[in-house]
Amino acid sequence: MSSLSVIAGPITLADRYQAIRSFTDRIAKPLTNEDCMIQSMPDASPTRWHMAHSTWFFETFILAERPGYREFDPQFRYLFNSYYNSVGNQYPRAQRGLISRPGQQRTVEYRQYVDEQMLDFLSNNSISDQLEHTISVGLNHEQQHQELMLTDIKHAFFCNPLLPAYDADGQLNRGQMFDSDWVNFSGRICEVGHDGTGFAFDNESPRHRVLLEDFSLATQPVNCREYMDFIRDGGYERPDHWLSMGWAAVQQQGWRAPLYWYEQDNQWMVYTSAGPTAVCDSWPVCHVSYFEADAFARWAGYRLPTEFEWEAGCPEQPSDQFADLLLDKNAAIHPTGQGAQENQLAQMLGGVWEWTSSSYSAYPRYTPPNGAIGEYNGKFMCNQYVSRGGSVATSQNHIRRTYRNFFPPEARWQFSGIRLAR
Amino acid sequence: MSSLSVIAGPITLADRYQAIRSFTDRIAKPLTNEDCMIQSMPDASPTRWHMAHSTWFFETFILAERPGYREFDPQFRYLFNSYYNSVGNQYPRAQRGLISRPGQQRTVEYRQYVDEQMLDFLSNNSISDQLEHTISVGLNHEQQHQELMLTDIKHAFFCNPLLPAYDADGQLNRGQMFDSDWVNFSGRICEVGHDGTGFAFDNESPRHRVLLEDFSLATQPVNCREYMDFIRDGGYERPDHWLSMGWAAVQQQGWRAPLYWYEQDNQWMVYTSAGPTAVCDSWPVCHVSYFEADAFARWAGYRLPTEFEWEAGCPEQPSDQFADLLLDKNAAIHPTGQGAQENQLAQMLGGVWEWTSSSYSAYPRYTPPNGAIGEYNGKFMCNQYVSRGGSVATSQNHIRRTYRNFFPPEARWQFSGIRLAR
Amino acid sequence: MSSLSVIAGPITLADRYQAIRSFTDRIAKPLTNEDCMIQSMPDASPTRWHMAHSTWFFETFILAERPGYREFDPQFRYLFNSYYNSVGNQYPRAQRGLISRPGQQRTVEYRQYVDEQMLDFLSNNSISDQLEHTISVGLNHEQQHQELMLTDIKHAFFCNPLLPAYDADGQLNRGQMFDSDWVNFSGRICEVGHDGTGFAFDNESPRHRVLLEDFSLATQPVNCREYMDFIRDGGYERPDHWLSMGWAAVQQQGWRAPLYWYEQDNQWMVYTSAGPTAVCDSWPVCHVSYFEADAFARWAGYRLPTEFEWEAGCPEQPSDQFADLLLDKNAAIHPTGQGAQENQLAQMLGGVWEWTSSSYSAYPRYTPPNGAIGEYNGKFMCNQYVSRGGSVATSQNHIRRTYRNFFPPEARWQFSGIRLAR
Amino acid sequence: MSSLSVIAGPITLADRYQAIRSFTDRIAKPLTNEDCMIQSMPDASPTRWHMAHSTWFFETFILAERPGYREFDPQFRYLFNSYYNSVGNQYPRAQRGLISRPGQQRTVEYRQYVDEQMLDFLSNNSISDQLEHTISVGLNHEQQHQELMLTDIKHAFFCNPLLPAYDADGQLNRGQMFDSDWVNFSGRICEVGHDGTGFAFDNESPRHRVLLEDFSLATQPVNCREYMDFIRDGGYERPDHWLSMGWAAVQQQGWRAPLYWYEQDNQWMVYTSAGPTAVCDSWPVCHVSYFEADAFARWAGYRLPTEFEWEAGCPEQPSDQFADLLLDKNAAIHPTGQGAQENQLAQMLGGVWEWTSSSYSAYPRYTPPNGAIGEYNGKFMCNQYVSRGGSVATSQNHIRRTYRNFFPPEARWQFSGIRLAR
Repeated sequence: MSSLSVIAGPITLADRYQAIRSFTDRIAKPLTNEDCMIQSMPDASPTRWHMAHSTWFFETFILAERPGYREFDPQFRYLFNSYYNSVGNQYPRAQRGLISRPGQQRTVEYRQYVDEQMLDFLSNNSISDQLEHTISVGLNHEQQHQELMLTDIKHAFFCNPLLPAYDADGQLNRGQMFDSDWVNFSGRICEVGHDGTGFAFDNESPRHRVLLEDFSLATQPVNCREYMDFIRDGGYERPDHWLSMGWAAVQQQGWRAPLYWYEQDNQWMVYTSAGPTAVCDSWPVCHVSYFEADAFARWAGYRLPTEFEWEAGCPEQPSDQFADLLLDKNAAIHPTGQGAQENQLAQMLGGVWEWTSSSYSAYPRYTPPNGAIGEYNGKFMCNQYVSRGGSVATSQNHIRRTYRNFFPPEARWQFSGIRLAR
Repeated sequence: MSSLSVIAGPITLADRYQAIRSFTDRIAKPLTNEDCMIQSMPDASPTRWHMAHSTWFFETFILAERPGYREFDPQFRYLFNSYYNSVGNQYPRAQRGLISRPGQQRTVEYRQYVDEQMLDFLSNNSISDQLEHTISVGLNHEQQHQELMLTDIKHAFFCNPLLPAYDADGQLNRGQMFDSDWVNFSGRICEVGHDGTGFAFDNESPRHRVLLEDFSLATQPVNCREYMDFIRDGGYERPDHWLSMGWAAVQQQGWRAPLYWYEQDNQWMVYTSAGPTAVCDSWPVCHVSYFEADAFARWAGYRLPTEFEWEAGCPEQPSDQFADLLLDKNAAIHPTGQGAQENQLAQMLGGVWEWTSSSYSAYPRYTPPNGAIGEYNGKFMCNQYVSRGGSVATSQNHIRRTYRNFFPPEARWQFSGIRLAR
Repeated sequence: MSSLSVIAGPITLADRYQAIRSFTDRIAKPLTNEDCMIQSMPDASPTRWHMAHSTWFFETFILAERPGYREFDPQFRYLFNSYYNSVGNQYPRAQRGLISRPGQQRTVEYRQYVDEQMLDFLSNNSISDQLEHTISVGLNHEQQHQELMLTDIKHAFFCNPLLPAYDADGQLNRGQMFDSDWVNFSGRICEVGHDGTGFAFDNESPRHRVLLEDFSLATQPVNCREYMDFIRDGGYERPDHWLSMGWAAVQQQGWRAPLYWYEQDNQWMVYTSAGPTAVCDSWPVCHVSYFEADAFARWAGYRLPTEFEWEAGCPEQPSDQFADLLLDKNAAIHPTGQGAQENQLAQMLGGVWEWTSSSYSAYPRYTPPNGAIGEYNGKFMCNQYVSRGGSVATSQNHIRRTYRNFFPPEARWQFSGIRLAR
Repeated sequence: MSSLSVIAGPITLADRYQAIRSFTDRIAKPLTNEDCMIQSMPDASPTRWHMAHSTWFFETFILAERPGYREFDPQFRYLFNSYYNSVGNQYPRAQRGLISRPGQQRTVEYRQYVDEQMLDFLSNNSISDQLEHTISVGLNHEQQHQELMLTDIKHAFFCNPLLPAYDADGQLNRGQMFDSDWVNFSGRICEVGHDGTGFAFDNESPRHRVLLEDFSLATQPVNCREYMDFIRDGGYERPDHWLSMGWAAVQQQGWRAPLYWYEQDNQWMVYTSAGPTAVCDSWPVCHVSYFEADAFARWAGYRLPTEFEWEAGCPEQPSDQFADLLLDKNAAIHPTGQGAQENQLAQMLGGVWEWTSSSYSAYPRYTPPNGAIGEYNGKFMCNQYVSRGGSVATSQNHIRRTYRNFFPPEARWQFSGIRLAR
C-alpha cells in the first residue's frame, strides 16, 4: 500500500506524522551512510543533515516546550539549527559536509527518539489548534526537506565522475508528445492566496484581491525538443535574449544547456535519478534557472506568467508526477509528462516547478507569525523568484494551487521548468 | 539666471540640448582633472567617463547614423560603450579608472565636437518624431549620468582620508523639524505609468490599471532623529528587523549607520558635498540601502509603500530640493527638507529617492524598443528595487511621478531615503 | 608484537610491503566509514582517498606495467591520481570529499585486490633493482600518506563542534621539563644529502658539500611554557616580530595561538588525538607555521637552523615519539617529549617536525627521475620551507637525518615545532 | 650634460641629492597629471604616489627628527607611508589610485618644500656618518622607486586599449645577434656580499663565505628568438617543463608569452615605452616571471644560476643599458642588447634583471638595522626569488654586483630576463 493511500484516508495527526516521517526514511533507503554525508555546494545539504534538522524542528518547537522533556543531545540544538536566529547561533551552513559524527546510526536513533516522544505526546494529550498548526508546519517542513534530499543528492552524485544512480532501476517512460496550445482567461478582479481551508504556509496569506487582465497559458510545459531548438538557435550565445544578470551567469558559469545535460557523441544526454540517458524530446525541460526560463520565453516571443495568472489558471486536478507516487511504482524521479492530455492545461500540479515572472514578496498586510516560526518565510523575501506547482520531487499531498516556492534566479538544481504565457 | 529657468520657457530642442549638456560641465566645474579620473568601486564611474559616455550616446545613436559623419575617434566606440551589446564589445566596467588618455582636455574636445555636430544637425534638419525621441532619451540619459557624477565623486572623495569637499562653500540649511503625519488614500482601481504626455522612459509604460487597497503615506520622509532612535535601539544589532540577505550585508560590510555617517567624539558626523558636518535631526535620512529602509520600517511598525501606492499618492508639486536649483543658489547637494510644509505630503518629488517595496519588473505588455536603445532598461529588471521621486542630485525637469529608478537592495551611494506607508 | 619489530628484522620486500600496507588499515581502524569521507580543506584529503590513492600508486606504477594486468576499475586511474600529469587528468583536489562511491567497502576491496596482485608478483618474480626502488618509493609514499591520514582527520574532527576524539583512550604523558641548553658545532665543509645506503627520496640527492660556519643547536625543542611566554608578551600582536607575509596571515586568519589551541576559563586547551586537554608546559609546542616559528625565534633573540646545520647536528639516535610506536602502546598521537634527556640533543628524530630557515630547493645537479615518478618532488620546489626530523605522526622507519619535508610557510596542520639555533 | 655625468664627478651629498631627486622629475616629465594617478594593480602604484612617498621618506626619517621641523602636511605621514609599521598605520595599498588630492601640483610643492629643507640642512650642518647613511638609503630608495615609476606606468598604459606610449619618439635599436657561449668558473670558497666600500643595502651583508662548485654562465641573456623557439615548441602547453605552481599560473592567468607580447597577423608584437613594435630576435627576452625563466631553462636543458654563482661570475664592467643613459640619448626604455660583445660575459649589469634560482633569504648573521629603517628589507624575506644585475629601468649608479633584487615568482611587470647556467 502506498504511503499516499495511507495519507489519503480520514487520518489522525499521528497517522500523518508517521506517514510523513517514514517517507523521509524511504527516500534515504537507496543511499549508503557515506552518500548521506556529501554536501556538494553551500546551497545543498547532506541527506543526514536533512534527516536530523527536520527532527530538530519537532524537538525544538514542540517537545522542548514540554515540561520535563529531556533533549536527545543538547549539542544538536546548535548543530542542526538551519537559520533560526531566535533559537541561537548556527553551525556554518557551508560546512555541513564536515560533520561525520553524529553518524548515520546515531542520527537514526535521534529520529526514533523524537518520533517516540512525539507519538507519545500526540496520543496522550489534547492538541490545541495552535499546536496542531505548529506540528503541521513541522510536517510540511519535513516534506520540503524531502524534496531537497532528492535534489541535493542528485547534485552530489553528479559531482562524482562515476555518475552513480540514485536508483538505477527507476523506470523512465518516454511519455507522449503533445503540441502545446493556449488556454485563454478573461481579465477580472480575483482573489488569490490561501482561503483558510487546510494547511498553508504563512507566505500564502492573507488572501487578497488582484486585478488580472486577459491572459493565456500554454497547455503544456516547454518540452526538451523545443528547448533544443532554442539551444540550436544560439540561445546560449546571444545576449539579446537574456537579462543582463542572466547573461553574466551564462558566461561566468559556462552554461550551454540545462543543468545535468551534457553532450556525448553529438547526442544530448541527461543525468537522472536512474543514471544517464538520452534526452527525450517529449519530456518537460527541467533544471533550468529563472534566467533560462526568461530567456527562452523571450526567444519564443512569449513571456512567463505572473504568479497570480498561474494561480488563477491552475486547475485543481493534479498530475501523477509526484515523488511519493513515482517511488511507489519504481519510477525514476524525473518529469516525463506521463499522463498529460492534449488540448487542456496539463501538468500544472506536479512534474516541474514552473517559474513565474513574480519576484517573491509579501502579500499585502502580511505579518510573519510570532516567535521563531516567524523566521520561516518572511525574511527570505528578497532577490528570489516564485515558482509554482510542485515537481516530481514533491509529495502530492504537499502541493496546492496557492503554494509559493522561491529560489534565486540562478538556481538550477531544483526540478524547475517553464510554462509560457502571453 | 538659473539653468532651470532657461529650460522652463518655450524652448527648442537645441536649447534643451545646450542647457542639459552645459549642466554636465557645471557639475564637473569644481573638480580637478585628476578628480575626474577616480573610480572608487565597480558600480561607480569616473567623472570623465560619464562626460565621454553621455557624449558617445549622441555620437553612436544620432550622429553615426548620419551619412558622412566622421567619428571623433573610432576607438571611443569601444572605450565608452557602457553595456550595449548590440553596439559591440565593452571595455571592462571595473577598469574605467585606468584610462588616463583620452585626458580631460581631449574629453572636453570630444564633447565640443559632438555638440557642434549635434547643434548643426538640429539647426539644419527637420527632426522626425522618432529622432526627437531618441535625442530626448539621450538628454535624459545625460541627466541620469549627471546624478551619477554627483554620487560617484562623493563616494570617491570619501575614500580619501583627507575628505576633500566637492564644494566647501555649499550652504547647508538646518531645515525645520516637522512631526510626520499620515495621509489616507482609499482603495480603487487606478491607472499607473506614463500617460503619453511629454518624455518618459520605456520602463514607465504601458500605462495600465492596478488595484490599490486603502493605504496611508507619511507626510514627511524619515528624518535623522528618527533614524538615530533606530540605531540607538539596536537597529543594526538585532537580526529580527532584517531580511536575511540584509542581515548578511550588515555583518559582512560592518554597517552600523547610513553610508557617510561616522562617529566622532560621541557625535554622529556625516560627510556631505560641503565636507563633514554634524548630523542634523531634521534632515531626511539618506544613503540608506533598501535593506535599511525595510528594517527601519519593520522596526517602526510600518512598511514601505509599493511603487503604485507611491505614484498614486504623489502630488504634482515638486519640492525645491534638486541639483540644478541647489547649485544655482550655492547650496550643498544635500537633503535638508528645506521648504517642507507641515500636515501635508511633502518632499515626494526631490530631496531623497524613496525606496518602495516593489521589485523592479516590466509593466504588463512591456516590450523594449527595437535596436540598441532596447538595452536601456529591460535587461536590468532583476534583483533590483524601485525607488521614486528624485533627489538632491536629480535635475528638477528630469523627474516626474511615474519615474522609476532602480538599484540593488544593498546599494547605498545614491541619495536614497525612506517614506513610510501603512 | 609491534609493527615496527616486524619491520626491523631481516625482512623481505614482501614482508615490508605487508607491514606498511597493514599499518594504513591500523590507522583507519578507529574511524567510521563516514569519518573516512571528510575533507575539511583543500590541503587535506579524506582518509579513504589516502587509502585509495596509495593503492593507485602501486597499481599504476607497478601492476599496470605488467602484461595482462587487469585494472580493478579503469575509472580509478582518473579518480585517485593526485598530481601526476604524465598519467593523465586529475579529479579536482578540492572536491575529494564529494566522492561517496566507491565507498569504504569497495575501497577496502581495491586495497585487497592490489595487495594480492602485488604479493603474487613479489613472490613469483625476480625483482630488478629499478623495480625494487619503485616499490620502495611506493611504500615510503604510503607512509607519507599515513602521516597525512593522521593530520587530516585531526583537522577534520576539529571542524566538528562535538570535537570527537580519534582515540579517546590514547594516553597522554605529562613528560618531564628540561631547560634547553646549547650544543656547539664548529664550522667546516661537510657533506649533506643521502649517501646511497638504503632508501631515500630523490630530493635528498645528490650528496654534496656545503660550507658551515660555527653554530649551536638547542638541546630541546621549544616547549609550551616558552611559547605561552611568547603569547603573553604580545607575540601575536606586534608586527615587528614577523615576516611581512606572516603578519598578514596573523591578521587575516586571526591567529593568536598555535592551531588546536583555544582558551577556556583562562586556561589554554589543546585538541589532541585523545580529545581536548589542558596545555602541558613541558610538551614541545606543535602545529605552528613557519611564520610562527620564525617569529618566535626572532622574539627569543635566536634563529631557526638551516637545513644543513640541522642535518650536520642531528644525532643518529631516534626518540620513541613516532606514530607506529605510540599506537602500539595505546598512547595518544601527540608530542610529549617522553624519553627526552637533559643536556644533550634530544628529540631531533621524532616528536615534532622542526622548521628550518631553508627554502625548499633542488640540491646542486639534481635531476628528477625519468617518467611520472619524476613528478614526485621536483616540481614542488617553490615557496615552501624545509622541516626535518619526523613527528609523532611519522613511522620510525620512515625517517632519517637526510629526510626533507616541506610545506608552505603558513601551513599549521602538520605536527611542526621549533628548534632554535644561534 | 647627462644626469649621470653630474653624478660621476667628485660630488657632494647635496649634489647627489639634487641629481637623484631631479631624475624623478625627469621620469615623470612625459606624463600628464592624469597619467600620474593610475594604479593598475595592487603591486603597482601611481606615479604621483611614488613621487610623494620617496619625499615622505626624507621628511619622516631625516627632517622630522630635526627639532623645529614643521611638516608640510601632517596627514601625509599616514597617506604616504608604504609599509612602515613603526611609523604608524598605512593607507591601504590597493587604493592608492583613489587619491586625487593632494593633486600633482601640491605633490610637486611637497617635493620642493622637502628639497629646500633638505638642502638647507645639508648645507648648514655637519652630517654624521649615521645620518649620511640614512640619507643614502633615502636616495637609493628613491632610485628604486624611479624604476618602479617606469615599470608601473608601463603596466598602467598597457591596460588602456589605446596603448599610449610613454615616449613615442624613444629610439629602439635592433641590436646585434650573438650566439651565446659558456664561460667556465672553477669551484672554490669565495666571499660574497658587500665588502663595505660605498653604499649597499642591509640585505647585501654580512659579507660571508660560500662554497661554489664548478659552474658555467652563458655569455648572453636568452634572446627573443630563443624564447620564440620555446613557445613554438609548446613551452606554455606542456606541464612537464614547469614547477607545479608555475603551471597553475600559466593556466589561471592564461600565459602564452611574456607579458606585453601579443600576436597580430601571425607576428609577435611587444608593447614598449615607445609603443607597440614587432618583437626583435636579437633582443633579450624580458618581462618573464621566475616560473617562465625556470621553465625555459629546464626546456633548454640547463638551469638558472644561484645568486652566488651570478655574483662570483659577474664582471665589474656595466653595459650601457640603464635608464639614465637611455633617457639621456632619447632611447626607448627597452633592452636591445646594444653594446653587447661576442664571446664574453655581456650585459650582466644593465639590460634585464636576471632571475637566479635563489630564494630570497637573510645572509648568515644578518640583523636588520634598528628602528623603522629595519623594516626595509628583512621582513620581505619569504616566498620571493632573487634577481641580479639591474635593468634598462635602473640607474647605472644604483647597481652593483652584490645588489639583490627580489620578487615573487609570478611577477612579470619588472624588466626581468634569463641568463642560463650549467
